[in-house]
Amino acid sequence: MSQTPRTREECEALDRADPLAPVRAQFSLPDGLIYLDGHSLGPATHAALTRVERTAREEWREGLIRSWNTAGWIDLPRTVGAKLSRLIGVADSNVIVADSVSVNLFKLAAAALPLAKSQTLIVEDSEFPTDQYVAEGLSALSGATMMRVAEHQGVTALHQTGGVLIRSIVNYRSSDIADVAASEQIARASGGVIVWDLSHATGVLALKLEADGALLATGCTYKFLNGGPGSPAFLYVHGELSGRIASPISGWFGHADPFAFSSGYAPREGVARFAAGTPGVLSLATLDTALDAFASVDLVRIAAKTGALGDLVIARSNAMGLPTISPRDATMRGGHVSLLHENGYAIVQALIARGIIPDFRAPDAMRFGLAPLYVRFVDVWDAMDQLADILATRAWDRPEFHARSKVT
Amino acid sequence: MSQTPRTREECEALDRADPLAPVRAQFSLPDGLIYLDGHSLGPATHAALTRVERTAREEWREGLIRSWNTAGWIDLPRTVGAKLSRLIGVADSNVIVADSVSVNLFKLAAAALPLAKSQTLIVEDSEFPTDQYVAEGLSALSGATMMRVAEHQGVTALHQTGGVLIRSIVNYRSSDIADVAASEQIARASGGVIVWDLSHATGVLALKLEADGALLATGCTYKFLNGGPGSPAFLYVHGELSGRIASPISGWFGHADPFAFSSGYAPREGVARFAAGTPGVLSLATLDTALDAFASVDLVRIAAKTGALGDLVIARSNAMGLPTISPRDATMRGGHVSLLHENGYAIVQALIARGIIPDFRAPDAMRFGLAPLYVRFVDVWDAMDQLADILATRAWDRPEFHARSKVT
Repeated sequence: MSQTPRTREECEALDRADPLAPVRAQFSLPDGLIYLDGHSLGPATHAALTRVERTAREEWREGLIRSWNTAGWIDLPRTVGAKLSRLIGVADSNVIVADSVSVNLFKLAAAALPLAKSQTLIVEDSEFPTDQYVAEGLSALSGATMMRVAEHQGVTALHQTGGVLIRSIVNYRSSDIADVAASEQIARASGGVIVWDLSHATGVLALKLEADGALLATGCTYKFLNGGPGSPAFLYVHGELSGRIASPISGWFGHADPFAFSSGYAPREGVARFAAGTPGVLSLATLDTALDAFASVDLVRIAAKTGALGDLVIARSNAMGLPTISPRDATMRGGHVSLLHENGYAIVQALIARGIIPDFRAPDAMRFGLAPLYVRFVDVWDAMDQLADILATRAWDRPEFHARSKVT
Repeated sequence: MSQTPRTREECEALDRADPLAPVRAQFSLPDGLIYLDGHSLGPATHAALTRVERTAREEWREGLIRSWNTAGWIDLPRTVGAKLSRLIGVADSNVIVADSVSVNLFKLAAAALPLAKSQTLIVEDSEFPTDQYVAEGLSALSGATMMRVAEHQGVTALHQTGGVLIRSIVNYRSSDIADVAASEQIARASGGVIVWDLSHATGVLALKLEADGALLATGCTYKFLNGGPGSPAFLYVHGELSGRIASPISGWFGHADPFAFSSGYAPREGVARFAAGTPGVLSLATLDTALDAFASVDLVRIAAKTGALGDLVIARSNAMGLPTISPRDATMRGGHVSLLHENGYAIVQALIARGIIPDFRAPDAMRFGLAPLYVRFVDVWDAMDQLADILATRAWDRPEFHARSKVT
């Protein structure tokens, strides 16, 4: 896939040769739609839809309270975490699924503060907003100093302070990739700690967190992992660390023996202490089955196809004169490509009206998501054809395409 | 319902006369089962099962990312909160649904600390464990003093310190009811603040939080509200307070304008600032429809029937010589009755083997849940018949009934 296709026929040939192509049949995609928004909400697999119905009708309706034991509900945070661990390159006992990314960032950053040389919370001003907001809230509660720095200055600030850095591996807007191994070396040298946000990275890159020295991470499961709307996040803690740190939200599901109903808190072994309240079983079960689409899929292949699809977006958009803020080097880029246009919002609406779904991030970025399990080269080719036509004919310049929705 | 029935025929007569009886048909109860565990996991309604399937197949599969707008996903935390508000007796704009009870207790107690005269977190040692554990964790992070007191001593400690008290309205074990209005008077006089846990109270009592002066509360929706396994919790903040307090977990869903993607945190108006991350849509939608079973049901009627069912459990268990730790006065009791027996675990297993499902709380409490929307007087009568038989014949004394499950 080193050569970017220059015709639709070349795209078809790449799709025919694509070893990931058979996985697409597992997805239940709406007819006639080209879905390039997997970086925001992944589509359903056939099996995931069946699973949520079985969980509701058989496990909840029929099994009722017994299903906590008989259907294994109680183990889902750990079993789904274990299933997911390969996708981020860590040991299967070091991941749980619990809560949201926002809540997990709070838990991990709070747990990291006592380990860090300096009580400073560092976040770049280009980070996904919730990462910045959570750092602010934790700073107010804990007394740690809040340090917001410019884009790409996070590691420098970490080096200078030895504080706690919250950092995305893939930037939600630009798709820039952080260098995990190099950053962790600086963290170790400075006495600082990094909490990684893997939300836009998991499922499109060949992540190897443990080999790269990462200690703490959380990430989203409803994007490239296709867990369903608002499915719970995952949380990773390195095995050598998890016995030495505490979750600030010490709920009963993180207790060593929750059904002893004892009065004092005693944390569970390992990462499971970072569970808090009762998990949402319908979403957790759905995610469990959604992850099966990744079974036996090679992560290097995933990353290569993601990169090749992105190269195609960049080559075609270049020809349209559309600037990109995403890296041109595929190895430096995540699973989406962001193209800039001052009328980006309206252009995205015009694409949606033609059955092509990317998304928009204020003020001017059109994001094209390139999930390698179900997006084909011809899909990207056809989407780019429509984008070129919309630009050439100014088809976006209609009042209905400028009306803003609540959620973009 | 002032007279406790003394025969099965009298139970049948009460069921015939019960104005709540028609609601039972909305529930999809397994054949041949008497379900007395609604205080742990409520059963499914037919409509809730249909709703989760529609949300998965139509809204997620077909609508994909568009459903955040077109299916109203973005508004669910507030619309479901508004629907629930009547059940706790507060204004409909003062409730959201978000996260778990554990996470919400953390958020509310942290938000309450700056309002309180004393930086002290008070919790009784008879409280549901997660309430105690969360207070411990928040104490460690915030520096507030942790004060664990004996049962029924929480309000006294509040009076003495002016701290923050975490208190259940209905105790998970004994079913004792707290006096909200009297406690809030003491809180006001002492400069303290109470965070109420409504988990075992909502859906069985005629709660009137705002009239009683309550300021902050959270509660479970998967028990008597029947939202499904692990459905998200609700969170209430009094309207006069919500503009003046901050959630420590300041995630993007609590931001004034989350889709502006601005760098600095600005809280949303009112209680909605206590939302954190992306909500679990499958569970939230299921809960939305589950709450329809309460539509047009009078809360005073709910509380009266709950009390009458509990009176019947107490009368029958008295005759068996089984002690109870639950109040004999129905107006002082929640939606379950706890009977004590040193072999309670095995007795509960023996009941389950006969198709009757109560539950067990270590070390010795058998809890019988009396959800007034689907439990009939004959159900309680028949369950007590079986309990009497199991005790008289020592049918519980078999090895398989002593084998402990992970979840009790």
